[in-house]
Amino acid sequence: MTDHGPGLSRDELKQLVRTVPDFPSSGIQFRDITTLLAHGEGLSASVDMLAGMAADLGATKVAGIEARGFIFGTALALRLGVGFVPIRKAGKLPVECIGEDYALEYGEARVELDPSIIGSDDKVLVVDDLLATGGTALAAVRLLRRAGAEVSHALFVIDLPELGGAGALAEEGITTHALIDFAGH
Amino acid sequence: MTDHGPGLSRDELKQLVRTVPDFPSSGIQFRDITTLLAHGEGLSASVDMLAGMAADLGATKVAGIEARGFIFGTALALRLGVGFVPIRKAGKLPVECIGEDYALEYGEARVELDPSIIGSDDKVLVVDDLLATGGTALAAVRLLRRAGAEVSHALFVIDLPELGGAGALAEEGITTHALIDFAGH
Repeated sequence: MTDHGPGLSRDELKQLVRTVPDFPSSGIQFRDITTLLAHGEGLSASVDMLAGMAADLGATKVAGIEARGFIFGTALALRLGVGFVPIRKAGKLPVECIGEDYALEYGEARVELDPSIIGSDDKVLVVDDLLATGGTALAAVRLLRRAGAEVSHALFVIDLPELGGAGALAEEGITTHALIDFAGH
Repeated sequence: MTDHGPGLSRDELKQLVRTVPDFPSSGIQFRDITTLLAHGEGLSASVDMLAGMAADLGATKVAGIEARGFIFGTALALRLGVGFVPIRKAGKLPVECIGEDYALEYGEARVELDPSIIGSDDKVLVVDDLLATGGTALAAVRLLRRAGAEVSHALFVIDLPELGGAGALAEEGITTHALIDFAGH
C-alpha cells in the first residue's frame, strides 16, 4: 500500500474507494469503502474533512445509520466532541423506540431510534457512508425530528449524484455535503 | 444530562450504561450502550481509555464486528492512527471473502472478512462493545488469522465475566481487556 502522507486530497481518497462491477446486480458499479477504511491515513483524512464540513454547523449530536453509518458517524462525533446517536435496524433496540418505514428498490425497510437520548435543544447531523436515492437518510431525518431534534444537514462520504438523493433531501429542508462523488453509478 | 467534565472515571462510565431488565428474554439484564454513546464526554472518555489499554500493543489495524463493534472499533482505529477492518455479517461484502460460522444460544451465525485488506505484517486488535461467551470474538480472531494477521489481544467496553468469554479467548491465545464489568448478567 502506498504511503500517501498526511493531508490526502479528495482525489486520493477517491482512489482508495474500490469499485466492484456488477454488484449487487448486473450493471451496478458498487462503491466499496472497505479499502478506504483499512487505510489509516485515508480513514483519518476522511474524518478530518467531514469535521471540516461540519465545523460551523453547531451540531450537538451526530447520528449514524446502521451499519456502515456507525463507522463515520462515530468518528465524526468524536472529532466534534459530541455524542453519537445510533439509528438502528428494526428490532435491535432493547427499549421503547420510534420507527420509520421506507421504500427500497425491492420491498421495504425500517429504521428505529430511542427518542429518550434526544433533547429538544439538540441539533443533529445525519451521517452515512453513501448517498444514493436518499431514502434511508430521509427516514433517519424524520425519526430524529419526531424525537424533537433540529436536523438540517446530512454528511456523506460518497454521493452518487445521478440517483438524486441531494434533491430528495433538499425537498425536506436538508442540505447535503459529500467528500467524493461518482458520476455514473 | 449531568456534565461530568473531562476524565470520567470507570464508575461514571458504568453509570452511563443503561440496564434493561428481561431483554431479550426473562431474567436477562441487557447492558445497553446507547446512553453512553449519546453522551459526548462518555464516548470520548471510553475511547481514550481503550486507546490507553492499546497503547503498548503495537497494533497496525483495529477490527470491529458488525454492527456495534463498528462504533468503538472505528473510534479506536482513529485514536491510534491506524486502519479499520470491518468484520461483517454474512452476505454484505461485495468481493470474495472468507467466513467463519459460530454458535449462538439458539442457532448459528456467520461473520465474513475481505482478506485482501490484511497484510502478513499486520497486528490486529479485535474490538467489540460487549464480551459475553466470546463466540463472536473468537470467530473474528480465526478469520483474521486465516487472512494472515497476528492477533493476540481483544478489547471490549463491557465484560460479563460470569459468561466465561475471557477464558474462552485465553484458550486461543487472546488476552482480553475491558473498561467495565458487570458481575451478575
